[in-house]
Amino acid sequence: MYGLIAKLTAVTGKRDELIQVLKEGTRNMPGCRSYIVARDAVDENILWVTEIWDSETSHDASLSLPAVKDTMAQAKPLVADFEKVAVTNPVGGLGFPSSP
Amino acid sequence: MYGLIAKLTAVTGKRDELIQVLKEGTRNMPGCRSYIVARDAVDENILWVTEIWDSETSHDASLSLPAVKDTMAQAKPLVADFEKVAVTNPVGGLGFPSSP
Repeated sequence: MYGLIAKLTAVTGKRDELIQVLKEGTRNMPGCRSYIVARDAVDENILWVTEIWDSETSHDASLSLPAVKDTMAQAKPLVADFEKVAVTNPVGGLGFPSSP
Repeated sequence: MYGLIAKLTAVTGKRDELIQVLKEGTRNMPGCRSYIVARDAVDENILWVTEIWDSETSHDASLSLPAVKDTMAQAKPLVADFEKVAVTNPVGGLGFPSSP
C-alpha cells in the first residue's frame, strides 16, 4: 500500500475553510482507503493530512479526476505552504483499512 | 479528538521486528480508534506511527496499561530514535474512525 503524510500551512485565518474544502473534495477517490485531516494542536494555521491508498498508481490517477482538480483549485488560495513530510507504505495496526 | 504523528528510527535491520512488536502490542487500548504503522518508503530504518484517540486522557492512560508497558519494554532496544512530529486534533475525512 501507498501512504502520504503532508503538512499544510493555511493562509492566516483560513485553516477551517481549507479543512472543509479538503474533506468535501476527497470523498470519492478510487483506491483511496483513508484520507484523514487533522488540526495541528499547537500552530493554529497548520493542518496534517494522512492518506492511505491501494497503490501509488491509484493516488497518481486521482490527481486527474475532475473533482480532485476542482478541489485543488479551491484549496490553492487557502494554502500558504505545503510540505510532503513522508511517503510511506502502511503495513497495519488498529483501525487499518484492510478493505476498500 | 487527539492525534499523534511519530517518526521512529529503528536500530539498523530491526524495523520489521519493531513493526511487529508495535502492531501486536497496541490492539487493545481503550479510547484508541486508530494506530497505523507505516514503513518509510525511502529510508529503510524509518517507520511512521499515526494515532487517533478519543481524548488525550485516553492516550495518557494507555501508557499505564500492563500490555502497553510490556510492548514499550520490547520495543525499546529496537528503537534508535523517536521523534514526535505532531500533536493533532483529527477532524474528519475519508475513513475517519467516527465510532470506537
